[in-house]
Amino acid sequence: MSSNWGTNLKISVFGESHSKSIGVVIDGIPAGKHIDMEQLTFFMSRRSSKGSKYDTPRIEKDFPDIQCGILNSVTCGTPICAIIGNNNTKSKDYETFKNIARPGHADYTGYIRYGGFNDFRGGGHFSGRLTAPLVFAGGICKQILETYGITIAAHIYSIYNIYDTPFDSLNIESNFAKNVSEKFFPVVDDNIGLEMQKCIEHARDNHNSVGGIIECAVIGLPAGLGSPIFEALECKLASIIFGIPSIKGLEFGSGFDITKMYGSESNDSYEYIDNKVHCKTNNNGGIIGGISVGIPIVFRTAIKPTPSISIEQDTIDFKNMTNTKIQVQGRHDPCIVRRAVPCIEAAAAIALMDSILGNSQFLCKLTEDK
Amino acid sequence: MSSNWGTNLKISVFGESHSKSIGVVIDGIPAGKHIDMEQLTFFMSRRSSKGSKYDTPRIEKDFPDIQCGILNSVTCGTPICAIIGNNNTKSKDYETFKNIARPGHADYTGYIRYGGFNDFRGGGHFSGRLTAPLVFAGGICKQILETYGITIAAHIYSIYNIYDTPFDSLNIESNFAKNVSEKFFPVVDDNIGLEMQKCIEHARDNHNSVGGIIECAVIGLPAGLGSPIFEALECKLASIIFGIPSIKGLEFGSGFDITKMYGSESNDSYEYIDNKVHCKTNNNGGIIGGISVGIPIVFRTAIKPTPSISIEQDTIDFKNMTNTKIQVQGRHDPCIVRRAVPCIEAAAAIALMDSILGNSQFLCKLTEDK
Amino acid sequence: MSSNWGTNLKISVFGESHSKSIGVVIDGIPAGKHIDMEQLTFFMSRRSSKGSKYDTPRIEKDFPDIQCGILNSVTCGTPICAIIGNNNTKSKDYETFKNIARPGHADYTGYIRYGGFNDFRGGGHFSGRLTAPLVFAGGICKQILETYGITIAAHIYSIYNIYDTPFDSLNIESNFAKNVSEKFFPVVDDNIGLEMQKCIEHARDNHNSVGGIIECAVIGLPAGLGSPIFEALECKLASIIFGIPSIKGLEFGSGFDITKMYGSESNDSYEYIDNKVHCKTNNNGGIIGGISVGIPIVFRTAIKPTPSISIEQDTIDFKNMTNTKIQVQGRHDPCIVRRAVPCIEAAAAIALMDSILGNSQFLCKLTEDK
Amino acid sequence: MSSNWGTNLKISVFGESHSKSIGVVIDGIPAGKHIDMEQLTFFMSRRSSKGSKYDTPRIEKDFPDIQCGILNSVTCGTPICAIIGNNNTKSKDYETFKNIARPGHADYTGYIRYGGFNDFRGGGHFSGRLTAPLVFAGGICKQILETYGITIAAHIYSIYNIYDTPFDSLNIESNFAKNVSEKFFPVVDDNIGLEMQKCIEHARDNHNSVGGIIECAVIGLPAGLGSPIFEALECKLASIIFGIPSIKGLEFGSGFDITKMYGSESNDSYEYIDNKVHCKTNNNGGIIGGISVGIPIVFRTAIKPTPSISIEQDTIDFKNMTNTKIQVQGRHDPCIVRRAVPCIEAAAAIALMDSILGNSQFLCKLTEDK
Repeated sequence: MSSNWGTNLKISVFGESHSKSIGVVIDGIPAGKHIDMEQLTFFMSRRSSKGSKYDTPRIEKDFPDIQCGILNSVTCGTPICAIIGNNNTKSKDYETFKNIARPGHADYTGYIRYGGFNDFRGGGHFSGRLTAPLVFAGGICKQILETYGITIAAHIYSIYNIYDTPFDSLNIESNFAKNVSEKFFPVVDDNIGLEMQKCIEHARDNHNSVGGIIECAVIGLPAGLGSPIFEALECKLASIIFGIPSIKGLEFGSGFDITKMYGSESNDSYEYIDNKVHCKTNNNGGIIGGISVGIPIVFRTAIKPTPSISIEQDTIDFKNMTNTKIQVQGRHDPCIVRRAVPCIEAAAAIALMDSILGNSQFLCKLTEDK
Repeated sequence: MSSNWGTNLKISVFGESHSKSIGVVIDGIPAGKHIDMEQLTFFMSRRSSKGSKYDTPRIEKDFPDIQCGILNSVTCGTPICAIIGNNNTKSKDYETFKNIARPGHADYTGYIRYGGFNDFRGGGHFSGRLTAPLVFAGGICKQILETYGITIAAHIYSIYNIYDTPFDSLNIESNFAKNVSEKFFPVVDDNIGLEMQKCIEHARDNHNSVGGIIECAVIGLPAGLGSPIFEALECKLASIIFGIPSIKGLEFGSGFDITKMYGSESNDSYEYIDNKVHCKTNNNGGIIGGISVGIPIVFRTAIKPTPSISIEQDTIDFKNMTNTKIQVQGRHDPCIVRRAVPCIEAAAAIALMDSILGNSQFLCKLTEDK
Repeated sequence: MSSNWGTNLKISVFGESHSKSIGVVIDGIPAGKHIDMEQLTFFMSRRSSKGSKYDTPRIEKDFPDIQCGILNSVTCGTPICAIIGNNNTKSKDYETFKNIARPGHADYTGYIRYGGFNDFRGGGHFSGRLTAPLVFAGGICKQILETYGITIAAHIYSIYNIYDTPFDSLNIESNFAKNVSEKFFPVVDDNIGLEMQKCIEHARDNHNSVGGIIECAVIGLPAGLGSPIFEALECKLASIIFGIPSIKGLEFGSGFDITKMYGSESNDSYEYIDNKVHCKTNNNGGIIGGISVGIPIVFRTAIKPTPSISIEQDTIDFKNMTNTKIQVQGRHDPCIVRRAVPCIEAAAAIALMDSILGNSQFLCKLTEDK
Repeated sequence: MSSNWGTNLKISVFGESHSKSIGVVIDGIPAGKHIDMEQLTFFMSRRSSKGSKYDTPRIEKDFPDIQCGILNSVTCGTPICAIIGNNNTKSKDYETFKNIARPGHADYTGYIRYGGFNDFRGGGHFSGRLTAPLVFAGGICKQILETYGITIAAHIYSIYNIYDTPFDSLNIESNFAKNVSEKFFPVVDDNIGLEMQKCIEHARDNHNSVGGIIECAVIGLPAGLGSPIFEALECKLASIIFGIPSIKGLEFGSGFDITKMYGSESNDSYEYIDNKVHCKTNNNGGIIGGISVGIPIVFRTAIKPTPSISIEQDTIDFKNMTNTKIQVQGRHDPCIVRRAVPCIEAAAAIALMDSILGNSQFLCKLTEDK
């Protein structure tokens, strides 16, 4: 099994890179929520290849064909299904690789896992293309969270060794974060963004690829969401975020750097300002004991370099059990970090929506506050 | 809800730091597995305070009183329940803090989450003490995995800014890793271990605390476990590991450092050696497309400094909504990393056991191979 | 939430009677299973209206458009999605009923549940039409179970007060049961079938409707599937069977009649015949302690009369909160029992498949036996 | 796996008839609910053997030892664990039966399911004794539901061929139903109750046993709880009720008798009386489309005769694979229906509590109404 997630909000992602379509069923979205289709289209377009030099030349319209669950732009309360056709497929590109493992790709592990019966074309169900339905589902959740005053926004924190200005996690404003995340190249500092783009071009020109780090913030979430132990917000977020292909690390607040602090530094002291709880620092990423503190939630994810590179690599033919070499042709992104930004936002939106739906007391309060 | 985890192996952790007892119900352990009680006791003792200068002076026997599910040291196939009494409680230590948030602790978030009704004494259900039943459950899974040739072992990778020799993830032998993990102070390089201990003493002497990083390896796991997207091994592992208190980061393989590589470096090239699949590097941590490659799985977790420090800190009285100060007295560890090592191993063992039980084909093969 | 089911086999049903399409995602079907499409089409056709005098005149092709997860008639191991278009919709028929509750239908309860935002046309997500994707999913499971020697077959046990010959639960042969279930009017005794059909015609001619009982048998299932308490086979079967609209009762073996026996009669004595375990009676329906005995599993479900009748009925306008009257026009079945037969078989197949996938030991043995 | 149930309210039942203890962990009970311990004790005592001539002579105190999750009679919001010691065990009674299947009991199926490793003494995990923790969990839920105005009450509807007056499902008052259910022998008509008791004595005197039917009503539940398809209230209730040992049938409203009605009879016409929705009949058991109508929910369950009888029966020795005979000695109930009444109420309370916790909108409304 592979592609179901959630407790009170359930999503079921389906499809392969070259199957008839890919899509998602979303079950649990409350009835009566207005969905702004234009905004949803824009959100999904942030994930699409623009055919720019940073993206794969495979351009798909990627607009979801909603089958059910939304009537006149309003949610029915019943499952929503959206389908995205696979039109621009070039299956022949993949025929020759059938038994030859592209390093960094799931060709070999998929072969073992499914006994050779999985659809290997274009990465099949492992393809990054499967994040399109995830972004659709997340886009709906994100819009609903916004009606509660909760904003989710991410930016490229680093590409290779070039780092953007971090979101100042305490003073960050939701509008600022949102504006950053909606840029074509979503960074705080556009000059650094230009350097990052040069770095990506350089990798591409060398038939190589690069990765990077995405930083995401959730602003406006009240205190009290999450639970200790296995329903910790960190568990909930991690359980879906690591489902996005190519993610190799996740850290909250100061993350790995918190290990280089003393307790007197890492503890985020509380204070009341105007009768509202604040913290002087945010080393815990806005989550203590698995529960939201009421300050911004901040986390970062590490995205590995795109595995598809046209440099010759050593590998194996796993059917004939021989060593061989491969040069991966086809249409690929030299860096997928830019397109992964809305995926992270989407995953976070889904995770929070599910947590909220499982905490009636919290939801009752959210609803009555608005 | 908070304290249930799993699909085919379900664990349900219960208890508060000062309740009558804490414990766990484990449902799904196959029938007929012999459990070595001495080995289980030893595994649990690795998590216990030794009353050494690195640990809390609160010493509990912590030996679980098995209620059911195991008969004559053999699993029945029905739920196993183990209970650990709370005897050495000093609830009065906590009375004065009732409304005053200890920074870095879940006092404030727990108060909001449970409307003030949670048992605040000793951290209640948020207490690190709740990892004892987790270690019990994990100890059982670990023993069963070993009968399939799968070894899980972790060591302290860093304390503050002092780093141990990493497990050489490709050539690591299971015996070596196991021996390291079973040391009183589990590090590869004992001289570095002594430095780490000095660092912890220094923090304690300054009424402060430190954190660190734990590195864990799974050796002997065949290729083919896990699934793409939400049943990725990374998702499964993360969903339980972030349930251990104080964990703020998780990375697989090269983790965050993979973002500073080119694709030509980060892709782990395959090769056959003696008809067995190998990789020349292990930047992906032994998992590609969410599925085990058949080489060691390696991951690291970041543990924050113990929040309990007796240095005076700014904080709030959340009942009276005033700013105040706090000095946390009581019995605390200046560093919990050493005791967290078996917790990480336990969580990994539970996660893998659940994955295996959900993949019949994989389990059939494991069983027939042995 | 509403439309997800399963643990190791997960199905997610979506769509409304008049939405663009209805369909299902099936996650967990093992890789490498050959699906006979012709047989699947035939199975689905058993649920379709034939436009005969016993069925609704709304005829839909109802053949599922498979989007993914099956390649060249072989399962990939990844999610299968099938979509069935809604073409023959007459939404106007329903406009006038928008606020008027059809008695026996979910118009009023759906209005309250979804705050009036659900798609009310044609019953929306409550429509019996949603059993088409269930039958698709069940058809796939049924074929796989047959490769293990497990046959599922049902027949009409009663219509109104007319009763068919029961399956002789102990001596029933799988071929016989299968042949009965595949008849246009699936009864053991065709003369009684003719009487039943007259009864249905009579109801229809009087603008009325009738219900009945379906009896289902599972033949060839070995002993040992299921678990005590909440994973009892009865729980698993009931949890999906009651999801089929209009089912108001479920009984196993002698069911309600077992309450009129003495223990000495109801206990199904065991005996070995040719080294195989037999029972002299089957009052427990082939399940003891929640676990299969290795003899046929037999259960019966009560289906209520179709609620749509064109006789005038008292009812309410729930928007204007007034009493009113209704005559339900539109296209309806005077009796849905015939078409529900494959739905019951499908639900049973899905339930057993999920149970089997969660019991590796059982599945390993099934696979090696074949 | 066997003994976990629930989505937002999770219960995990553990123990064997002769293990150290049996018990339950309940996760998801909201914080701040006052639990009346005396009332809980009384509810549990309704399930206990009174040592009367209708019950087993095995008398256990059966009072649960609460480990955690309740502080000063108020729920903490964290998991509640209760343990019930097994003191009055006579394991030797069972030694001789070890390989001999008691007909109607799970000895043979349990042996196959667990490969002979399950604890067979006293029925092990299959024992009816495991309903004690279920009743504990249900008792807590029942008390909370009562604070929302929701009453659950059941009575013995039949023993063998003797039938009590049914609850008049439409006009039943919660106080009346509650008073009936709390009688020592819970029937509406006490004269019929005396006849039933004679019938049980007669069976016992003949070394035999009898079963019966329990009718349960839920009064005061507002309209709008449940969902179409797999989250139908019928599914939710069935999925836990069939987990009670010895239940062989479940029907809602008119149940199997609805199949002998015309649609014009079975449809429950609506009408407004004093601006409140009523139904003229209740053939659907208060649930339409899987959702509560706002009138009483009524269902009946069939309980088989106690399988333990001391009449000689044919059976098998499943280890030596020979035919043999058995006379079941030991301490048994000639009829368990009386003691099963609170079990049904408990299961219903748990099912409804879980449904409510998963429907925030419904819960918000419930809470604000009170």
